[in-house]
Amino acid sequence: MYSFKDDYSEGAHPRILNALIETNLLQMKGYGEDDYTRQAIDLMKKRIKHNDIDIHLFSGGTQTNLTVIAAFLRPHEAVIAANTGHILVHETGAIEATGHKILSCEVSDGKLDPACIKSVLNTHTDEHMVKPKLVYISNPTEIGSIYTKAELEQLSQFCTSNNLFLYLDGARLGSALCSEENDLNLYDLGTLVDAFYIGGTKNGALMGEALVICRESLKEDFRFYIKQRGGLLAKGRVLGIQFLELFRDDLYFDLAKHANEMARLLKNEFSRAGCKFLTHSTSNQIFPILPNWLISKLQENYSFYVWAGIDDDHSAIRLVTSWATSEDAVLTFIGDMKNAIRS
Amino acid sequence: MYSFKDDYSEGAHPRILNALIETNLLQMKGYGEDDYTRQAIDLMKKRIKHNDIDIHLFSGGTQTNLTVIAAFLRPHEAVIAANTGHILVHETGAIEATGHKILSCEVSDGKLDPACIKSVLNTHTDEHMVKPKLVYISNPTEIGSIYTKAELEQLSQFCTSNNLFLYLDGARLGSALCSEENDLNLYDLGTLVDAFYIGGTKNGALMGEALVICRESLKEDFRFYIKQRGGLLAKGRVLGIQFLELFRDDLYFDLAKHANEMARLLKNEFSRAGCKFLTHSTSNQIFPILPNWLISKLQENYSFYVWAGIDDDHSAIRLVTSWATSEDAVLTFIGDMKNAIRS
Amino acid sequence: MYSFKDDYSEGAHPRILNALIETNLLQMKGYGEDDYTRQAIDLMKKRIKHNDIDIHLFSGGTQTNLTVIAAFLRPHEAVIAANTGHILVHETGAIEATGHKILSCEVSDGKLDPACIKSVLNTHTDEHMVKPKLVYISNPTEIGSIYTKAELEQLSQFCTSNNLFLYLDGARLGSALCSEENDLNLYDLGTLVDAFYIGGTKNGALMGEALVICRESLKEDFRFYIKQRGGLLAKGRVLGIQFLELFRDDLYFDLAKHANEMARLLKNEFSRAGCKFLTHSTSNQIFPILPNWLISKLQENYSFYVWAGIDDDHSAIRLVTSWATSEDAVLTFIGDMKNAIRS
Amino acid sequence: MYSFKDDYSEGAHPRILNALIETNLLQMKGYGEDDYTRQAIDLMKKRIKHNDIDIHLFSGGTQTNLTVIAAFLRPHEAVIAANTGHILVHETGAIEATGHKILSCEVSDGKLDPACIKSVLNTHTDEHMVKPKLVYISNPTEIGSIYTKAELEQLSQFCTSNNLFLYLDGARLGSALCSEENDLNLYDLGTLVDAFYIGGTKNGALMGEALVICRESLKEDFRFYIKQRGGLLAKGRVLGIQFLELFRDDLYFDLAKHANEMARLLKNEFSRAGCKFLTHSTSNQIFPILPNWLISKLQENYSFYVWAGIDDDHSAIRLVTSWATSEDAVLTFIGDMKNAIRS
Repeated sequence: MYSFKDDYSEGAHPRILNALIETNLLQMKGYGEDDYTRQAIDLMKKRIKHNDIDIHLFSGGTQTNLTVIAAFLRPHEAVIAANTGHILVHETGAIEATGHKILSCEVSDGKLDPACIKSVLNTHTDEHMVKPKLVYISNPTEIGSIYTKAELEQLSQFCTSNNLFLYLDGARLGSALCSEENDLNLYDLGTLVDAFYIGGTKNGALMGEALVICRESLKEDFRFYIKQRGGLLAKGRVLGIQFLELFRDDLYFDLAKHANEMARLLKNEFSRAGCKFLTHSTSNQIFPILPNWLISKLQENYSFYVWAGIDDDHSAIRLVTSWATSEDAVLTFIGDMKNAIRS
Repeated sequence: MYSFKDDYSEGAHPRILNALIETNLLQMKGYGEDDYTRQAIDLMKKRIKHNDIDIHLFSGGTQTNLTVIAAFLRPHEAVIAANTGHILVHETGAIEATGHKILSCEVSDGKLDPACIKSVLNTHTDEHMVKPKLVYISNPTEIGSIYTKAELEQLSQFCTSNNLFLYLDGARLGSALCSEENDLNLYDLGTLVDAFYIGGTKNGALMGEALVICRESLKEDFRFYIKQRGGLLAKGRVLGIQFLELFRDDLYFDLAKHANEMARLLKNEFSRAGCKFLTHSTSNQIFPILPNWLISKLQENYSFYVWAGIDDDHSAIRLVTSWATSEDAVLTFIGDMKNAIRS
Repeated sequence: MYSFKDDYSEGAHPRILNALIETNLLQMKGYGEDDYTRQAIDLMKKRIKHNDIDIHLFSGGTQTNLTVIAAFLRPHEAVIAANTGHILVHETGAIEATGHKILSCEVSDGKLDPACIKSVLNTHTDEHMVKPKLVYISNPTEIGSIYTKAELEQLSQFCTSNNLFLYLDGARLGSALCSEENDLNLYDLGTLVDAFYIGGTKNGALMGEALVICRESLKEDFRFYIKQRGGLLAKGRVLGIQFLELFRDDLYFDLAKHANEMARLLKNEFSRAGCKFLTHSTSNQIFPILPNWLISKLQENYSFYVWAGIDDDHSAIRLVTSWATSEDAVLTFIGDMKNAIRS
Repeated sequence: MYSFKDDYSEGAHPRILNALIETNLLQMKGYGEDDYTRQAIDLMKKRIKHNDIDIHLFSGGTQTNLTVIAAFLRPHEAVIAANTGHILVHETGAIEATGHKILSCEVSDGKLDPACIKSVLNTHTDEHMVKPKLVYISNPTEIGSIYTKAELEQLSQFCTSNNLFLYLDGARLGSALCSEENDLNLYDLGTLVDAFYIGGTKNGALMGEALVICRESLKEDFRFYIKQRGGLLAKGRVLGIQFLELFRDDLYFDLAKHANEMARLLKNEFSRAGCKFLTHSTSNQIFPILPNWLISKLQENYSFYVWAGIDDDHSAIRLVTSWATSEDAVLTFIGDMKNAIRS
């Protein structure tokens, strides 16, 4: 049973484990004040090419999101997110548990744009309603689509004009930035959003997300927030060592490219077989629409999510690839798929 | 510069890293539903010898504490803790951030007893005050002392009689259970407290705390709480593998014994040199009271916390040992200390 | 400028003010433990005809809603409400500020039914999502519609079967119960819902809502929650005296009947003039759809909300009547409306 | 049974009730946007003699305190209060329920000074601890003492120097400002603190506290916070009318003076009878230390709090006077006391 369920089914890239071993017995300060964390942050700053950013390492995405949003907002301020936004549905009310409402925008492609944000602003006009203040986007989105530079610039400009923070959840940021259709880079993100995070868990780390805070006013006292929410690892070195390895050279991007390439292989074969897709994705998640009999057949040897029913006979499935997905596995899956269709 | 600052200055015990490597590419379900986590929990249940307990793995102590307390209490209920309690002072208001007040008991040895809890109950009598509901203790305490079985039994009985939950923070539980003066075991804990956690971070793991919930009514929906507070690691395997290795045999206890032994070496030599101690400790933290000039001298080559001023010329320092503290380092330190005194 | 904006534009029914004056200098215990509050609660219990209910007096609806919901739910539990629900939109995130998510059901008539609740349950299935636990309904709804006994019985049965609490916001409950189409009474509410409140602010009181808790398990420690949220008035007598006066005889219902009668007068005339209505309402709020020119004309002498645009030339307005709305004012308004149409 | 238990045992000053009656049927906007509220605020601003202050009306002290503190602080920031502070003990954890820790200063006279605040700052030095940010004081304090102008100036200067907000709970502010030993006025408060409230509930109103925000940066969006916490009364006029009446002339101060005068009568007689007092009070609460037999005797006809045991034979009681305390009642009480002592 091979799994295409997600991009966190395996451990970490071997280089990361090796780095943990090599550094293991060197004594370091705790709570992220170790040399590795400092070096990792320096390396990432160089990559992002902004000097005036702050970087903090977290062990998971939900923890990052809830800490960021609770830190950035005053009690009456709310978040705007797409109806597919991870924080809206799949974080067990983590944001609301910090006291903040999330206002949902109905969109079809997982992406927010100025028009749909404007419509939320238009219906939140006085003190009987929450005050929308932070726009939450994911890149790639939860359904695989990515933002173009033009789209992000429009969003950024709109947010600035309307005094809104723009925060980008980059759980799979590597995959977005390495997509064949991408025209954004880390420097652009540092320019266009107020904060974003560079996801490690889904791109080769044991765990780890690197939060980048770009707006000066949002940096103050941030370590207090991390500690208060239980996010300050005693052995912060574990996060530092991993990001140091991922950004020491191009490892972070190489892993993401591999994941995308594996997804593309799958996508092309499904296309050739005449399948349609639920969403347009050039990242490491694809959503082919298959006849239900074929899904059942494939489920005999593969695990993946059945994402949504399409009609009585068809459903969209989600296939996720990662740094650890082997080309062999993909080819075997494709072969099995073709055989099933043929027979 | 050798550090006796804490027990999380190094990485993990080599066996743990090896286990991570050996299991690295096997695909597993996410979020703690992997085989390793299941096996680790089974092993720990066997050790604790209670069948009706639930175990959940967390990545840090503050996260465990805040999740447990927010899950167990209703909004108006409060925690009772010793004035030295970790949650009271050193978790950046993490408990209050979930809405709950902590009521402090002034004690001299870090340990709560029925009398001091009773005095808190006596002053909280109606709906204009919070309702004390959960008693938080640490074993060993934050100042190195440990609870005897008789003491814990008294506390347990008092809590039961007064409809209070008893929760034990076991960040350094290994050290307590392996102390030469200890007469408690894991089975006793499962019988006497409503929940406790077995600390991994400070006893050889990269990170990890195993929460044990003993009271039936506190188990329901607990994974919701972990997720909501950002504590559900996508690669939960990382925690499972570590606890599996720690409890596969006696590794967890062997590491704690070593830490205690190193502390005892230090303690004996300070005693011989005529030093007094701030607290009575048989665990891996000791608090010798030294002349300030000696502290300064030692700080040239060693790092440690100066814990409290005693008089104009003396202060108590905190020395912490761990699984990773080498006997060589301890002996060298002792030598340097003796030389300093002699000269 | 006469106002049909809301049902809280005037002070209190004169009998209430007289009662305040008559009792003014009698000394009473504070915080709702006075004789008047006790008597008011006794009277209301007799009206509701349930012996095993608890009643608490609040000074406002938002305060009641947030206290109830925060008291009834555990941290991961969520509320289900209609998209028009007051708590969803018009309470500035008061519910979320206590940590709980509100899940919205899209409905056309302001009323929830088992089918739409079921669809929410179907999409909230594991610990990555909040756990729906409390169903919030308003009677009358925010758009004037009311629940029939059959509808409420179905909801009640569904909630019981699915282990959900059913809570009814009765900000305008008098108007619902006195509607010509109503077949519910207070006894039915005590049987069918877990808690509801009898609104006073919008039916003749200076302020005041009487919360009725019907389910045994939800009663415990409730006064702690009221105090914690700042809802326990020092001079609780002020609330007690008012509800005592409202329920001493049929005053509460007489006032609601008057409000409904005034709304019916308006409604009939708009019908006769050929107007359609946005919603079917037999309570004290009606939503006629008018040509925009007529709205502008009426706004010269009357204030009311323009509720929703219908097409380029028409909008729905909201007209609200109350115990204080005089028949003269209504007739004058009708006359002005007719004149405007004729001219 | 006459009560000296508190200053909220009666209703409101008759002029206030008359004002409610006179204005009763005039239509007004809801939620504090009515003419009376506006006029009341204008009058109070003139009294305070600061133009750049904001004033908001609340219905109770706990609600005011929790709204203010939750609005002013970021999540990791904490409050410093005296160990006798009302928010620390008698508000059912209302502040913690908004997420903020209260740090207690042990003081003997209910008053904070720079030295004790400094000691709290000295032990809160990094991100593992909360960040003290708001100093909460009460004037008069919960044990009847009052701040001198010099003391408040020192506090104010210290807070400014240390970047702390200074907030004054004025539940009984009238009594403090009318104390024979007082040298502060409303203008001074507007200059020296960041926010304070003028208590109405305990000085002749049915309910009502007027919050004054002096610091510019704390004013923004404040009505959102009031609404979110359930504090925005639909009939805000009820608060406006009351403060309008209290500040139309010197009524607010006249009532406080009367309360103080009644307390002074009591105090003088207890002094003459040789009693000592638990605290030095020139406000409307006094704490005479009496033999327990005398307390029992007095309790036959009077109700009051037994505040604290002093020794086996003596306790301190609390006697509270108010605008409604009649000189006759005081003289009768004094007579009864003298008779009891004599017999």
